[in-house]
Amino acid sequence: MPALAGLDGFIRHGGRLAAARAAFPNAPQPWLDLSTGVNPRPYPAPRASRAERARLPDPEALAALEATAARAFGARPERVAAVPGGEAAIRLLPELLQVRSVAVAPATYGGHAEAWRVAGAAITQVPEDAEAWAVVNPNNPDGGATPSDLLLSSAGRRWTIVDEAFVETAPELSVAARAEGRLVVLRSFGKFYGLAGLRLGFVVADEALIARVRARLGDWPISADAIAAGLAAYADDGWAERTRARLARDAAKLDRLLTHAGAVVVGGTSLFRLARVGDARAAFLRLASTGILCRPFEDPQLLRFGLPGRPADWTRLATALGDRL
Amino acid sequence: MPALAGLDGFIRHGGRLAAARAAFPNAPQPWLDLSTGVNPRPYPAPRASRAERARLPDPEALAALEATAARAFGARPERVAAVPGGEAAIRLLPELLQVRSVAVAPATYGGHAEAWRVAGAAITQVPEDAEAWAVVNPNNPDGGATPSDLLLSSAGRRWTIVDEAFVETAPELSVAARAEGRLVVLRSFGKFYGLAGLRLGFVVADEALIARVRARLGDWPISADAIAAGLAAYADDGWAERTRARLARDAAKLDRLLTHAGAVVVGGTSLFRLARVGDARAAFLRLASTGILCRPFEDPQLLRFGLPGRPADWTRLATALGDRL
Repeated sequence: MPALAGLDGFIRHGGRLAAARAAFPNAPQPWLDLSTGVNPRPYPAPRASRAERARLPDPEALAALEATAARAFGARPERVAAVPGGEAAIRLLPELLQVRSVAVAPATYGGHAEAWRVAGAAITQVPEDAEAWAVVNPNNPDGGATPSDLLLSSAGRRWTIVDEAFVETAPELSVAARAEGRLVVLRSFGKFYGLAGLRLGFVVADEALIARVRARLGDWPISADAIAAGLAAYADDGWAERTRARLARDAAKLDRLLTHAGAVVVGGTSLFRLARVGDARAAFLRLASTGILCRPFEDPQLLRFGLPGRPADWTRLATALGDRL
Repeated sequence: MPALAGLDGFIRHGGRLAAARAAFPNAPQPWLDLSTGVNPRPYPAPRASRAERARLPDPEALAALEATAARAFGARPERVAAVPGGEAAIRLLPELLQVRSVAVAPATYGGHAEAWRVAGAAITQVPEDAEAWAVVNPNNPDGGATPSDLLLSSAGRRWTIVDEAFVETAPELSVAARAEGRLVVLRSFGKFYGLAGLRLGFVVADEALIARVRARLGDWPISADAIAAGLAAYADDGWAERTRARLARDAAKLDRLLTHAGAVVVGGTSLFRLARVGDARAAFLRLASTGILCRPFEDPQLLRFGLPGRPADWTRLATALGDRL
């Protein structure tokens, strides 16, 4: 059993399968990775053609993707800039906004505080005390929703960055259509569409800020593959609608398994569930010994679970959870 | 025939096929794109598996790519950071280095001056007058070589950024093995390996600067596809050796065609050739009318040509060039 220090990497981010293999060499293969909030049943996206992989992505193809994504977000195309993953936007904004203080909730995606700290900004907890507010909506990991009117009124007084990485599961929360002035919205492609390896995200903002994002990333910010996949996926409203319904059903099913195992589901979105257990560390290690990777936190009672995909994965999780966690 | 204004986009960057189609709707399809310096016969790279596309790229896979690339560059792995395309590095460095003035040659890749201007730095021509020097080696478009000892001694006095985007054609010029202190080397995957649509590049530098690059890009800077391709390509010394020889033969063949057409080849690398012609604008338009896109510049006598790939493309270019340009 690895020392506590060995779990630091798993607490920092999900998705660290190679580290899991190294830490638990006797666990059955292949690993079932439930440590992220990525949809396990990806959009059946086309790949870039051989010719598209070979050449520089055409600016017109990038513009077409941004227009298609803008329609899906309910935003104007000139307010949407594609970036190589949501994380790229999170790390870029502190440089562009140049504020001295930012409010970030203590229990939210860790990349925000990290990015602002790198830029030298002071991190506070209360938006009223800060020149900027970075908020994940719905929140990761607890699924907490921040009402639109609170975000809009905040943006009247300070830069308000709304990370809508999981908002496809609750589209009524999105303020992407209202992004202007000091309201900046970040979107992620990989989570809902299940293609995190493509590295595609978007900044939705005022034209002036979008121009600065573009100037900082240059003419070819994303890959030909990301363009091909995004163009198809964001135009497919039917898939999005069906997937939203399926994810909601699967999240309810996961809640039943967790509850049956004695955990208390305390929140989440329909892409991941947050569970309170008696001893998260012991439960994490027990699951890891069966080749199932979930996500621990600093809080010694919390574990987050992504959704299994295939029927066999559901069975494997149900067996591993059993009736006690 | 489009107005001069219509050529601005083609002067800014190569690879704008959609713009070419729009500007020359009667040109035969498909276009033969010779407007970039991308190898027309790509490395036969594996694609990321379905599972790799779906999940976040594993940090260990990224580290393995960086180690493999470092070996190919002759650099230490801890001094190499992968970035989503060489352009991403060009645009990031001004922010990290925070100098007030930078020397950039007037006739070189335009992205450098653009990036420093965005960051508010003054552009000079003479390194001795500046706090930084950004130099493309070998230079694009004229192929000019800057001796290693000049670069190393410059780095003793100022930040010296060496963009080695085309150095695989002249590996003896590389200073990647010496990157430390204020010597920063940028590498590009897409050009020599013919896969510009993947968006993969590298910063080679002192550990302290590499740490800042990583902090600015986050844990998943590049796509699973870029990792899969780079891992295979940078380990394949035989392909690189054969490709270097083939590109040199093809460049010589292209020179013969251009010379036969009355142009004077004034420089280039074996991925592109720079030709002086009587009237570059007229020659550009004449080639475009046959569906061949080359690269014009502000200089009214210069055109740059990338290499044709397939035998039919060579024949098409030879026919279009004829005996007068």
